[in-house]
Formats: sequence, C-alpha cells, structure tokens
Amino acid sequence: MSLKFKIEKKLEGKLGRAGVLETPHGKIKTPAFVTVGTKATVKALTPEQVRDLGSQVVLSNTYHLYLQPGDGILKKAGGLNKFMNWEGPTMTDSGGFQAFSLGAAFGDHVSKIASGESSVSRCGVENGGTDSSCSLAKIDEDGVTFSSHIDGSKHKFTPEKSIQIQHNIGADMIFAFDECTSPQASYEYQKEALDRTHRWAKRSLDEHKKLNKENKISLLGIVQGGRHEDLRKESAEFISKLDFDGFGIGGSFNKDDMYTAVGWVNEILPENKPRHLLGIGEPVDFFGGIENGVDLFDCVAPTRMARNGGLHTTDGKINISNAKFKEDFNPIEKGCGCYTCQNYTKAYLSHLFRAKEMEAGTLATIHNLYFINKLVADIRQSILDDNFEDYKKEFLGRYYN
Amino acid sequence: MSLKFKIEKKLEGKLGRAGVLETPHGKIKTPAFVTVGTKATVKALTPEQVRDLGSQVVLSNTYHLYLQPGDGILKKAGGLNKFMNWEGPTMTDSGGFQAFSLGAAFGDHVSKIASGESSVSRCGVENGGTDSSCSLAKIDEDGVTFSSHIDGSKHKFTPEKSIQIQHNIGADMIFAFDECTSPQASYEYQKEALDRTHRWAKRSLDEHKKLNKENKISLLGIVQGGRHEDLRKESAEFISKLDFDGFGIGGSFNKDDMYTAVGWVNEILPENKPRHLLGIGEPVDFFGGIENGVDLFDCVAPTRMARNGGLHTTDGKINISNAKFKEDFNPIEKGCGCYTCQNYTKAYLSHLFRAKEMEAGTLATIHNLYFINKLVADIRQSILDDNFEDYKKEFLGRYYN
Repeated sequence: MSLKFKIEKKLEGKLGRAGVLETPHGKIKTPAFVTVGTKATVKALTPEQVRDLGSQVVLSNTYHLYLQPGDGILKKAGGLNKFMNWEGPTMTDSGGFQAFSLGAAFGDHVSKIASGESSVSRCGVENGGTDSSCSLAKIDEDGVTFSSHIDGSKHKFTPEKSIQIQHNIGADMIFAFDECTSPQASYEYQKEALDRTHRWAKRSLDEHKKLNKENKISLLGIVQGGRHEDLRKESAEFISKLDFDGFGIGGSFNKDDMYTAVGWVNEILPENKPRHLLGIGEPVDFFGGIENGVDLFDCVAPTRMARNGGLHTTDGKINISNAKFKEDFNPIEKGCGCYTCQNYTKAYLSHLFRAKEMEAGTLATIHNLYFINKLVADIRQSILDDNFEDYKKEFLGRYYN
Repeated sequence: MSLKFKIEKKLEGKLGRAGVLETPHGKIKTPAFVTVGTKATVKALTPEQVRDLGSQVVLSNTYHLYLQPGDGILKKAGGLNKFMNWEGPTMTDSGGFQAFSLGAAFGDHVSKIASGESSVSRCGVENGGTDSSCSLAKIDEDGVTFSSHIDGSKHKFTPEKSIQIQHNIGADMIFAFDECTSPQASYEYQKEALDRTHRWAKRSLDEHKKLNKENKISLLGIVQGGRHEDLRKESAEFISKLDFDGFGIGGSFNKDDMYTAVGWVNEILPENKPRHLLGIGEPVDFFGGIENGVDLFDCVAPTRMARNGGLHTTDGKINISNAKFKEDFNPIEKGCGCYTCQNYTKAYLSHLFRAKEMEAGTLATIHNLYFINKLVADIRQSILDDNFEDYKKEFLGRYYN
C-alpha cells in the first residue's frame, strides 16, 4: 500500500474528519472533491486550469478508456498521468457501473439493471451517461458481458479484467469490481448481488496483489447493499476485513436516507483508511457525507451543469442563459476568486453561451469546479476550526433559500 | 492618429519591411499575423493562451458582434478589450464582407455577390462562413441591406453605420466600409463597385473623424480593384490620398497573381503607414505578401483547420485523425516550443479528436497559431538578418515538398 492517510482532526460527536491522503503523485487534503476526467481529460480544461482552480485529484473512467483509446495505449504512453499531462493524484473506477448503465445488452440470460432515480446514479458519468434510462447487461458469476456503446462490439469485464485494465491505465487509486444494483431491485436480488460483489472483491484483491509488484497502486474495496441496513452493515463488515487500502461506498440510496446509510457503513469501516462516496456532488451532499465520515467525493454534476450554463453561487444555482444576464456586467459571483469571476462578466458569458462558443464551457466549468472545491475546502477548514455546524447552517440556509 | 509605425529594416530590392506598430494597447512587431476572434473570443482559447502562444493582436468581426450580442453591449462593457479580457491590440473589420457573404438577400433589386474561389475569400470568417457558396445582398449607393443569418431580421450597413458600430466596439484599428466584389464580376461591375467603395471610403473617414474625439481609434482605408492592374493602381492612388492611418488590401485575387497585385498596390501606398492583407493565411502567402510590402495578415485558416484536426508542421500539413497517429507517442513536431508539443503526444491528440473532446480543439489551435505566429516572426527575423531569400527557400522547400 502506497497510500498514507493521516487524520488531523475529528468532528466532535460525529464520524467526520479532516485529514491528509498521501499518494505517489502528491497529497490530498481531505475531505476533497475528486474532479472527473472521464476520457483522460477534464472536459473543456487544460490540466493547468484544473490545478489552478483548486482540484487536487482527477478520476477517469475505466469503461471509457478501455473502449477508447484502449488501456494498451495508456500503458504504452506511460500511464494516465503522463498521457493526459496531469501531475497530481489520479483514480479510476472499476468500469462496472458504466458496463451496466452504458453497455447494451445481448445474450440469452439478461438481468435488468435500472439505474432509476437513486441519489447515486443521478451523477452518472461525464459522457453518454444514461442515468434515467434502463439498460441491459448480462451478469454471471464470472463478470459482466456488454456491448460497446460506441460500436456495439462485445466485451466482458471480470474482476480480474477490471484490475488488469486499471493497472494498465495506472492511476494511483483504483477500485475493486462490483455490481451496482438498482434501487428498484428486490431484497433477494440485492442480497444475491452483494454476495457476488464480495466474491468479486476477493478476486479483485488477488489480481491486484499479483500485478502490484512495484507497490505503486492502491486498491479500494467497495461497500454495497442498497437501502438495507442489514446488507450495508454486512457489506461494511465483510469489505473492511479484506486488505484494501481504502473504501468506496457505492450503489443506490434514496436522497433522504443517503447520509444515514453512509453513517451505518462508516461506523464499521476502519477509521484509519480513506472513504470515497461514489458519484455524489450536490452542495448539500458534502455536508451530509462529511459529517458521516466521507473523505472523498466524485461527481460529473458540476462540470456537466456548467456546460449547460448552470452555475453555482452561494445564493443557489443560476442559468446564465436567462435573458436577465444579457446586460449584467457583474461577475457570476462578486468576491469569487475564480479565474472566470476575476476576468469576465455575466454579460460576456451569456454572449458566449448564446453564440455556442467553446469558451462558454471552459469559463463556466472553471467557475463551478472552483466553487465546489472551495466549498469542500471550507467545510474542511470548519472542522479544523470547530465551526462545522455554524458553517453548515450558514451555507445551506443561503444556498437553498 | 494614435498609431505609430516605425520601419526597422527594409528587404533589399523589394517592398518588404520589418517594423513596429504601436497601438493604444501595445506594440506589434511587423510583419505580424492577426489572430481572428470572430465573436469576441478566439475559439477554444482563453486570452492568456492566445497571448502565451505568441499572438500580438486579435481581430473581431463587426457583422457578428453587431448581430450578437449587439455593439451596444460591447460599448456598455467598456469596449472589445475589456469585454473579452484581451489586453493587447485589437482590430475589427468593416462588416461589409460578411454582410455580402452571410447576409441573406431580399428586396426587388439585388446584386449577385458570388464569393467564388478567389484567394481572399477562401479564408472567410470563423463561424458560419460560406466561402464557396453564392449569396445575395442588396447594394445601393447608400450601403448594403441584408438579412441576419441568425434570425432573418433585416439590417442595413452604410459607411456611417459601420463606423458607428466599430466605434462602439472600440478596437484600436478599424476599417473603412467597402464592397468586396466577386472575381467573376465583369470589369464594368468592378469599376462601378470601386468608384462606390471610394465614395464610401470618404464617408467612412468623415464619420470616423466625427466620432474619434479622443483620438484613440485608427481607421484603415481599403484598396480594392479585383485582378485588374489599372483598377488596383487607381484604387491605391485614390485611397492613399485620403487621411487614413493605414491600409487594407481587400478583395479577390487569383492565387497566381495575388502577390503581383499586392505589389502593384504597395508600390503606390505611402511607405510610412501599415498595410494589412485581408483574409490571407497560408504559409506560402506570408512570404509572397511580405516581400511585396504587407505588414499584417489575418485569416481563420489556422484555427478552423485545427478544430478539424489539420495541423501545420515544417514538413507540411498532417491530419491527426489519420490512423497512423493512434500510437504515435511523439509530439506533433519535435522541437516545437508550443504548449501542446511540450506536453502532449500525437496519440493523445488523436484520442481527443476521436472522442470529440473539447480539449482537442484547444490543443490543436494552440499548435497551429503558435506555428503561424512563429513562421511570421521568423520571416521578420530573416529580414533583420538579411537572410530572407534563404529562409524562404528553406521553409517552402520543406513545407511544400
């Protein structure tokens, strides 16, 4: 294990903590938001822009890179960091979620995977995500068989294959191969899938140990179990006993019980290893996740929303395409320290979006990522300053007013 | 006149010269390539990226900004530089060329304006240019009536209106309103249009003097005359006698006689004022234009080509979408000093283009603009070093091999 995790301060009476996670490509101050760079690029930004707006770590998607350009090319390029010119810490997911949600179905025995309206799946993936649709993929004990969303070609991910691909991509932190069930799935199916996910966790770990000769890559196990307290706790118990370097919390929650479920899990997971809540990124979620012991979050929402003109402000979201901004010569948010707010007006952004100019996406993405990174950094600081509850009340009261 | 132009060295036995053009927003070392930022943004780049790749001056299109967001918004924003966050020198064209080529026709008396296959019009404008098509606009003594290519609304540009719009936009250097004729037009029509352009030149100048109280904006007159030596010379004589701060050479040439025609004009134009060849930007054109006395060039070709995957190298153009680059881990050009070549491989660019990622356009545009800026800077240096002919032979021999 090449990850070092140090807790600097705990949130009194709660599971939350501020810490520092050390990776081969640098330190991450946690809690942290992980910026999504699906296809080895954070859409619309150079790596220098990503760094300058405060992103500490980038997550790419294994499913996408496997299909295009192929993990062999990333290996030949010297790995993800070198390929995409990002010097900081990196992660990849296991590819499972996208194989289920994007891979078209075929075969005689298919399991229906409805991504539904769960809190987790609303985030989806950066490109081609079909969060609200149902798709089909064939799942068996060995793994998941799917068709490429690009050309329909047939592929199979197994735990071993996922780990092999992730080692070729070569991020600092990678994930065990798991099954992300639908929130609509029955208890019986959730239980069956969870047992399989646990068997896949062991297989992922075995394959990882075989490949990780240089000990540069860290493997995070994933806790599943849907909305069920007993399954979530069983999963946390099982996964925490395996020799993982950290943990992901995946799957489907209802928005209402998400934080509770995260708390069930984090009370069991070992305190000294980092925890990543997969695919979550609304402002309110950071408070709920962090006070329940989450260290890392990733989500495409801030970047995808930005490209559609949706911008975060401390007074809530605005859409820059609204006619009232056409002659508004103020920045998106007065006092915001981001490059966009320091240099451009809402009138200019409004023009760029109407004119369908590429810089529209760039400037909006810079603002939203800066906003989210700063929010998570401010929550971290509030833990250090014994000020979490006040900051939470102040921020949420203003944002969701 | 707020332009100061100083010739540092002349090309022996030819019309070419290396100089420095001083504007209210800084100095331009000439000859220089003017980067096109049609809608107050250089497509796919931030102003800092534009500056860092060596661009000295940006030209926006009056027709586009008038229609979207409207020159009134640019005026309220404090002018083009402030609106788009570009600190360096700026230009706008007169809007005439786009009104002819993009504005749809209506009215009872229409003149057919075929943009044809002339050397000039191949460059067109950054967005929505319809270089090879014919379009219709109504021209009369007063000006040009056209319909917006965005919403079909009816508009009229006159010399006075063009100058008023350009003053609202507020670039450092603006152009007189002219008619750019088709190369297919008859001699008689060319003559008629030229006389009208000369009357419009005077009207443009009168309006400019009325509006230019602060003496911050410089007006360049435009020489037309098509492929006809007598008309070109007549136009150069006429325009050079008016109180312009510099000159544009516009209109239609055949590729073969373009440099000759430019020479006819520049032998007549006063030596102490800058000359801009409108809409020209192929590598060979810089040599031909510069040795015939051109100081400034603008063209969308380098940026538009880049967004389509066409990249300049000293060994000629390549298309990055070619399958052979998929596993080519070299930069676009070894030894190239641009950000893209310093940090990315052809394999990565190839991936970004195949994946239709926004950074594909950004990285390719950075390379092409750097390449063109450096080429023109190297030609300038070869004039200073008495090495122009050798450099021309070497570059062209390799590029067009």
